[in-house]
Amino acid sequence: MAPVTGVGDRMHALVERLYPLCRSITGDGVRATLDVVGECLPLEVHEVPTGTQVLDWTVPQEWNIRDAYIADPAGRRVVDFAASNLHVLGYSVPVATTMPLAELREHLHTLPDQPALVPYRTSYYTPTWGFCLAQEVLDALPEGDYEVRIDSTLADGHLTYAEHVVPGQVADEVIVSCHTCHPSLANDNLAGIAVAVSLAQELAQQTPWYTYRFIFAPGTIGAITWLARNTERVDRVRHGLVLACAGDRGQLTYKQSRRGDAEIDRVLRHVLAVSERPHQVNEFTPYGYDERQYCSPGFDLGVGSLSRTPYAGYPEYHTSADNPDFVTPEAMEDTLAACREAFAVLDRNRRYTNLSPYGEPQLGKRGLYDSLGGRSDAKQAQMAMLWVLSLSDGEHSLLDVAERSALPFDTVAVAADALREAGLIKAGGG
Amino acid sequence: MAPVTGVGDRMHALVERLYPLCRSITGDGVRATLDVVGECLPLEVHEVPTGTQVLDWTVPQEWNIRDAYIADPAGRRVVDFAASNLHVLGYSVPVATTMPLAELREHLHTLPDQPALVPYRTSYYTPTWGFCLAQEVLDALPEGDYEVRIDSTLADGHLTYAEHVVPGQVADEVIVSCHTCHPSLANDNLAGIAVAVSLAQELAQQTPWYTYRFIFAPGTIGAITWLARNTERVDRVRHGLVLACAGDRGQLTYKQSRRGDAEIDRVLRHVLAVSERPHQVNEFTPYGYDERQYCSPGFDLGVGSLSRTPYAGYPEYHTSADNPDFVTPEAMEDTLAACREAFAVLDRNRRYTNLSPYGEPQLGKRGLYDSLGGRSDAKQAQMAMLWVLSLSDGEHSLLDVAERSALPFDTVAVAADALREAGLIKAGGG
Amino acid sequence: MAPVTGVGDRMHALVERLYPLCRSITGDGVRATLDVVGECLPLEVHEVPTGTQVLDWTVPQEWNIRDAYIADPAGRRVVDFAASNLHVLGYSVPVATTMPLAELREHLHTLPDQPALVPYRTSYYTPTWGFCLAQEVLDALPEGDYEVRIDSTLADGHLTYAEHVVPGQVADEVIVSCHTCHPSLANDNLAGIAVAVSLAQELAQQTPWYTYRFIFAPGTIGAITWLARNTERVDRVRHGLVLACAGDRGQLTYKQSRRGDAEIDRVLRHVLAVSERPHQVNEFTPYGYDERQYCSPGFDLGVGSLSRTPYAGYPEYHTSADNPDFVTPEAMEDTLAACREAFAVLDRNRRYTNLSPYGEPQLGKRGLYDSLGGRSDAKQAQMAMLWVLSLSDGEHSLLDVAERSALPFDTVAVAADALREAGLIKAGGG
Repeated sequence: MAPVTGVGDRMHALVERLYPLCRSITGDGVRATLDVVGECLPLEVHEVPTGTQVLDWTVPQEWNIRDAYIADPAGRRVVDFAASNLHVLGYSVPVATTMPLAELREHLHTLPDQPALVPYRTSYYTPTWGFCLAQEVLDALPEGDYEVRIDSTLADGHLTYAEHVVPGQVADEVIVSCHTCHPSLANDNLAGIAVAVSLAQELAQQTPWYTYRFIFAPGTIGAITWLARNTERVDRVRHGLVLACAGDRGQLTYKQSRRGDAEIDRVLRHVLAVSERPHQVNEFTPYGYDERQYCSPGFDLGVGSLSRTPYAGYPEYHTSADNPDFVTPEAMEDTLAACREAFAVLDRNRRYTNLSPYGEPQLGKRGLYDSLGGRSDAKQAQMAMLWVLSLSDGEHSLLDVAERSALPFDTVAVAADALREAGLIKAGGG
Repeated sequence: MAPVTGVGDRMHALVERLYPLCRSITGDGVRATLDVVGECLPLEVHEVPTGTQVLDWTVPQEWNIRDAYIADPAGRRVVDFAASNLHVLGYSVPVATTMPLAELREHLHTLPDQPALVPYRTSYYTPTWGFCLAQEVLDALPEGDYEVRIDSTLADGHLTYAEHVVPGQVADEVIVSCHTCHPSLANDNLAGIAVAVSLAQELAQQTPWYTYRFIFAPGTIGAITWLARNTERVDRVRHGLVLACAGDRGQLTYKQSRRGDAEIDRVLRHVLAVSERPHQVNEFTPYGYDERQYCSPGFDLGVGSLSRTPYAGYPEYHTSADNPDFVTPEAMEDTLAACREAFAVLDRNRRYTNLSPYGEPQLGKRGLYDSLGGRSDAKQAQMAMLWVLSLSDGEHSLLDVAERSALPFDTVAVAADALREAGLIKAGGG
Repeated sequence: MAPVTGVGDRMHALVERLYPLCRSITGDGVRATLDVVGECLPLEVHEVPTGTQVLDWTVPQEWNIRDAYIADPAGRRVVDFAASNLHVLGYSVPVATTMPLAELREHLHTLPDQPALVPYRTSYYTPTWGFCLAQEVLDALPEGDYEVRIDSTLADGHLTYAEHVVPGQVADEVIVSCHTCHPSLANDNLAGIAVAVSLAQELAQQTPWYTYRFIFAPGTIGAITWLARNTERVDRVRHGLVLACAGDRGQLTYKQSRRGDAEIDRVLRHVLAVSERPHQVNEFTPYGYDERQYCSPGFDLGVGSLSRTPYAGYPEYHTSADNPDFVTPEAMEDTLAACREAFAVLDRNRRYTNLSPYGEPQLGKRGLYDSLGGRSDAKQAQMAMLWVLSLSDGEHSLLDVAERSALPFDTVAVAADALREAGLIKAGGG
């Protein structure tokens, strides 16, 4: 399929629209984000109360923030939440006081090696407060007493996440998960959200084989909450993909599931190799995004992660430089295309059983041979039929056939359809 | 074993003698071919009636042809079956008519890219008629009315194939199969027939372990017929080799069975590697010769295929250039030698169980050590005994021992014989 | 652990002290050797009577020798056991006679290609006598009658071997075996004995997990005797190492067990690779030292062999040039260090089961995260914890974790300890 014209621009516009919202692992910024996503896709939004036990964790208090600033001795706001929500340490407790710069410094976070950038920092589970600012701004501050104010609340409330389901022909599910907890960071993870939205819109135009479930949830605690509330559904999750850092200019990176040989791993490796995109395939590691949770040994799901430059691999990572200019329509379109290609394989990748396995069946008498003529694509179609017949022993999938025959997956899938219609193969094991 | 002097010339003489006969998948040309082979080897010839159901196929009507030609407006035979049986499309229905060249062209087959050569074409299952000729002959034909005559019959009859069996010490079988359906093509497959004949003659001089069954049958429908009539015997077929394109000047090519790790695959890979012949080992593909049928997923036999330049891989393939000059005594001798070497390994490649597996048995007290002295071949023989003892756990074969020890298979097999005679190992699992 | 200062010199002193003793597969030279070793380590010495059936072998008569020489026609001792015990063919029967040089030659062994060196030869199971001498000495002998005398006894007695056990926390055993049957050869195997002694002394300072059993026994017949008398204990032998040729200046060589993927094989490969020592890892072969017996197919123990230049791989092998100058304190220290490093991994290499396998457990609330700060070693410690949690499914060992994470084994083991103390993992399968 050719990329849909304009989808890159639409994804970028979504990134820009979501960018100013102050997301965290809970709070109204998440709700506002899901409201915007909900304009693109019907969402089922879940609110999970503070204190709910979720696996080994507990849903924390909800954090909301209205304003925050540091004013210098002259009363000028030198650090201002209104300018960028990165300026406040995520989950800062409220504060309203005045203190000398020397004392304030203990609450200030900078990046000495990137003096013009504001870092992104949080403290979800250790109550404290802080500000993030550019080192060069800090360096210019005169000594003196500073007014410090964070107008935030930490109170019982809810953790908010959302799901969108594209129903398939079977109840077996593919999950697509992206984290929604980062404030003004574009690649991490507004680009992932935007790609997920477009992917869901495209799938809704089809009747896919699998049921596709899109999960928009805060990182770690959100995925853990979803898993805790879906322990039975997990048995139906056949495959999954975590989308993160989906929009920068780097090449595509697929991080394999913990299993390493899950079908999603094979599909992504195949699609990326066949497409001749420059790309990288990485082994699983137990750090990164929510594949950590889906692939924890108790679940061990076949969930990989697709990124461009991966987790923590670019200098703009977790800084104010990860802004909408850092992500491009073209990069997001390419990530979307890779997902589209992967799901086109995954969704048709079935095992068949040859119903005429003793010798070759006579294709000619079924009109599967005569009609072929001598054209090169007809010859390829015939080879694809012979390959599908040869390997349809209930063990090999169509992807196995494609890889072993070096034929395009699509050619193989079309051949399988023809053979199935002719009654020569049936889906499933013997 | 050194090659038998003169066997190459004898094989080439057989190719030349068989070359003029008009073979097809049925008919008297096949019978005449088997008569000649029968002068070299006792054959059991089978006649299977038209209409017999064989697996998914049906034995077709028998085709015979006496004469065929095209005469130009001046009455000269410009295309004549008497000159080469390739000139007639195989299985052509009879025709006796006159038609203008323009109309006749629809029944003419040429090779525009090889204008001096006559192609080989057939239409077994779609009733039609046609002639094959050189493009340059066609180009020289004047317009006008041409007399066209094919004196053929298509009638109920039989499909003919033959078997030759070299009895072994066990009922387990090795099959050697070659197709007999091509008319005047030398490499494809008179060379294969000639190598099979010489191989059978050599094996008959021995008392091999396995029973060796040579199958001379038309391609596809013949192998399918054999399989259909031998469904119980198939369980006894342990290994097999399809011989085709066995005489051209190219290097040896072994095409592995569908299983890829069948014992025949390992044996051929070993023998070709050890011999230091230039050669190629190819993966299984579901097109080629009758390995397609033997390796169909219902049977999935350990049957590979040995060729020189493989199936469709040379410009002379299926043309009048595949004539006796295209195959050489030396090439056929080399193919025969490779078969001989492979069967020498296969036939002795057994698993043993060490009857004294706790610690090394004392070789000296059994005279297996003292007699060795310090000669290098004696040292190798002793190492071979230690290797056989070490790996005779009922799982490793002598070929495993040879490969792991890097000792010649023959040395290993001789060591195993000595250990067996000394009562230190026994054939088979624990 | 840093190498213990001076251990190399102590090992070399032990080699020098043991060097003059005339060891064989039985006899007082073995006892004297074990007396010296017993000064370093408490030993349990076993005496097994002549005639005892041990697996396929029988304990031979005991050999002792007091004196031996060849005197030339002038009465000068031209070959003298008192100068080097290598001069007598091991297990020589007694002889006292005079014979012309021509006749004597049949009993003389030399190394024509190394004319200055005395070879080491034995004839344990074929009764005969002989002398070993330098070719250049032989060449200088005048014709004439020579007095020949070997004052030896071959009589019923015992085969002597010894064990030293370092008790562990579990009854599962690691054996360290070295052969004690070679007379004045330093690398083969006094260096192995010396390294084993130091290794045992170090282990005795710890409370290792495994019970470590050091076996000092004659080659082949000694290992066979130990195995025959310990058939029940063998089931508790989890791992083992044969130490031989442990002191020459060559690089370390690890020869894998017959299984090739035994835990000891993986540990040695890992330790040698990580240490960045130049080294070699060899496949198992059924010749060499007593790994032959431990790895015989009936036992098939996970026993590898650690050497420097391996068995028969150096020109000094089995000659008078394998003297104390041929082995160095530094080389023995390095071999000892490799053993120490390997056993440090082996002894802690356990499988764990994650007790909180659904999602990641919250490390912070258990103090496993907060305390980390931002130091690089703290980050590594945290990654190690995540890796251990991810792979603790009862199947992966800590070595698997170290290899997959590319983290040092020690870091992984420390992380596992912390997780175990926090109740997040338990030893063993699920």
